[in-house]
Amino acid sequence: MRLPLLSNNNQSIGVFDSGLGGLTVLNSLETQLPNESFIYFGDTAHVPYGSKSIETVQSYSNQITQFLLNHDVKLIVIACNTASSVASKLLRKNFDIPIFGVVTPSVKQAISYHRNGEIGIIGTQSTIASNSYVEKFTTLAPHIKTVQKACPLFVPLIEENWAKTDIAKDIAKIYLEQFTMHHLDALVLGCTHYPIMETIIQSIVGDSVKLVSSGPAVSTEVKKFLIENNIQNDCSNPKIEAFFVTDFPLKFDELGSQFLGRALTNVNHIKL
Amino acid sequence: MRLPLLSNNNQSIGVFDSGLGGLTVLNSLETQLPNESFIYFGDTAHVPYGSKSIETVQSYSNQITQFLLNHDVKLIVIACNTASSVASKLLRKNFDIPIFGVVTPSVKQAISYHRNGEIGIIGTQSTIASNSYVEKFTTLAPHIKTVQKACPLFVPLIEENWAKTDIAKDIAKIYLEQFTMHHLDALVLGCTHYPIMETIIQSIVGDSVKLVSSGPAVSTEVKKFLIENNIQNDCSNPKIEAFFVTDFPLKFDELGSQFLGRALTNVNHIKL
Repeated sequence: MRLPLLSNNNQSIGVFDSGLGGLTVLNSLETQLPNESFIYFGDTAHVPYGSKSIETVQSYSNQITQFLLNHDVKLIVIACNTASSVASKLLRKNFDIPIFGVVTPSVKQAISYHRNGEIGIIGTQSTIASNSYVEKFTTLAPHIKTVQKACPLFVPLIEENWAKTDIAKDIAKIYLEQFTMHHLDALVLGCTHYPIMETIIQSIVGDSVKLVSSGPAVSTEVKKFLIENNIQNDCSNPKIEAFFVTDFPLKFDELGSQFLGRALTNVNHIKL
Repeated sequence: MRLPLLSNNNQSIGVFDSGLGGLTVLNSLETQLPNESFIYFGDTAHVPYGSKSIETVQSYSNQITQFLLNHDVKLIVIACNTASSVASKLLRKNFDIPIFGVVTPSVKQAISYHRNGEIGIIGTQSTIASNSYVEKFTTLAPHIKTVQKACPLFVPLIEENWAKTDIAKDIAKIYLEQFTMHHLDALVLGCTHYPIMETIIQSIVGDSVKLVSSGPAVSTEVKKFLIENNIQNDCSNPKIEAFFVTDFPLKFDELGSQFLGRALTNVNHIKL
């Protein structure tokens, strides 16, 4: 992966998502990289990406990456499974900066959990239809059998704050039922919202199945990359954090705190 | 309501929505106005409007209205409850063409059903938070008591094609439970998707409650207006119908046919 020509240890890390779900990834990044500073971009005027066309998601992702580059970030994390699935290749072609999607790190982590069984993948319609996870497994570990399923109602359930209700459990049972016919070693949660439903998902697939979430998986890769290239932030107090959103939707504060684990501050409204 | 200066009987009627839900309204318009031709605009790149800010919905609605005017329509139907709720006043100020929202026609129809009870209203978060229905009842029939409830999961349920499942019934029971404590004469379905769930909704609120859907309500008003102003289409074969969408989302054809009752043809992709 190329380093930007003028990379500087104390530059921020840019993180973007279609909306607020990527805040679960930011949360993991902050935990694993407490000395780094971050700029988060949530494209709340266009959320959700999960049901939009590839061309549209690529166009939005391009504009956001340019925006983050203009804000002088040292690397970019695509904290969105849909954008990682359909736009990461294009962004790496278009921009001269290290770009991490969430697909490859999750696949690598799932492979490390593989024993004799299969790997399951769940995500939005677009992510599953893109086959990005299946293709990455085929590239990195062609011997592993995969099985995938789109779960389009999980995101609205979580955004309605019903993630821990009986209804959520009933819906999860319907979506995840097919996995009980497979012997799964791991299940990739291929959507940044899904960790909020982790308890219910785990209870249905069983405790023996390791759940792989985007946030911890990509944070591990980013940390490794920063160390290997010696571009960790060396400031003692780097917490200059900024949030940019393209819209202030209803329940913005409530959802933001739910995903990030604390209230959002320094939030700026901008147009793409 | 002003007539456009150069209005011509054989011009099309423009219909727009955030996405494909407004096709249920187009379906009603076609049934009640079989001699008219229509242009439908679905803003599928920005759907859903229901969870976005007022300013964002106003900006999209403005651009779409200008687009329809450029296509020489004789009047415009906002086939979207959210846009009708937050943008119709602004559009009437900005554009010199008759503009019909779905709120006023539905309220008028609900008032005609009023006996001694209350009127219920359900819709997306934005529509309910806007208070547009309650305010319209206050203006037109201040003696009628209203009670409203946002049902954010209905749209994703319908788009998942689960509208007739037990899960949909369980979710509808939770949302609609509060109405059983009121004596309702009518319930306004304040979202163009909701007619797809009519059977379940009716079974929960009871057969004595009249359901008011946007499509039939606004079609009745438009028909009246065309007759009163003598601008009905006098062509014998006016079916020059065109669809414009800002994105081709997954399941476009499936959803389109579900809402319109037949397959969409002459569909054009455009950028706003």
